[in-house]
Amino acid sequence: MEFKDLLYARKSIRNFTGEPITKAQVDAILEAATRAPNACNFQSWFFYVVADKAMIEKFSPDVYSLDWIKKASVIIVVCADPGRLEERFGQRVGNNFVTQDTAAATTNMLLAAADMGLGGCWIGHFNDDKCRSLLNIPSRLRPVALVPIGHPAEQPPQRPRNPVEKVSLVIGDLR
Amino acid sequence: MEFKDLLYARKSIRNFTGEPITKAQVDAILEAATRAPNACNFQSWFFYVVADKAMIEKFSPDVYSLDWIKKASVIIVVCADPGRLEERFGQRVGNNFVTQDTAAATTNMLLAAADMGLGGCWIGHFNDDKCRSLLNIPSRLRPVALVPIGHPAEQPPQRPRNPVEKVSLVIGDLR
Repeated sequence: MEFKDLLYARKSIRNFTGEPITKAQVDAILEAATRAPNACNFQSWFFYVVADKAMIEKFSPDVYSLDWIKKASVIIVVCADPGRLEERFGQRVGNNFVTQDTAAATTNMLLAAADMGLGGCWIGHFNDDKCRSLLNIPSRLRPVALVPIGHPAEQPPQRPRNPVEKVSLVIGDLR
Repeated sequence: MEFKDLLYARKSIRNFTGEPITKAQVDAILEAATRAPNACNFQSWFFYVVADKAMIEKFSPDVYSLDWIKKASVIIVVCADPGRLEERFGQRVGNNFVTQDTAAATTNMLLAAADMGLGGCWIGHFNDDKCRSLLNIPSRLRPVALVPIGHPAEQPPQRPRNPVEKVSLVIGDLR
């Protein structure tokens, strides 16, 4: 799809048909993630793709409180891998950079899913300790987002946005 | 451009022709930013568009150490506006969310610029205090990224990425 159209086609989908998604689709989503801009090209990220139904069932209510997540075909757990960036820039700055890098990757993932007619949702608020123990995530990684993905069983409108003039200030002249 | 192609066309551009960019182009970039997924649809961001040549000249070396930034047609200063999210989720979680939200917006901005044949670069490492005083940024906002944008005077290849298999683990079966 044209990027200009995709910007408006992407929206948070929280209800899925349950139809499986293919390895090729997951690969396209992950490939998009890895193409994200990122600090020093360290690619400080790692992605768990939970495709096992029994494992998906365990996400709610332990990792995430709402039930709809169980209908996802896969749940991608986006993890930050802050080691190298923290070594170079210190803990505070490095941590900030991995948060930005993994968010850039997540943005691309959601666009790639929408580009294939799939839907997903960015979940930032979840129990990261339980997520870690469920997936046996090593201590060097930090889970930062859950992205359930599937075939949309709803087509909500994209939520309205403030107009550009309200969230920006131009300094100087533009024609 | 097709999103699939745009993912590979986008790369960090650090040299510009100096040719001006138009208000319509800046508006398209900001419109893309506002379409980013974001926590609670609070749209916790604000964008300063520095188009004034004298002001752009002041960015290096005070705000950012390298000289090339002066050749940008505009510098967009991406700011987080954490108030509402910190109120709802507390300081630590809210701050994490605005970092993700502004990173999602920045990702869309760079894709939109590349979609129009423009180039830009995500600068996360800069002197935020000097940026704040130069632009007179109010205390409720926090500058999180500089995005110099202009007409590319270079076409470097996108830097190579690790293959998907190296940065992911599938749990379960995918076909």
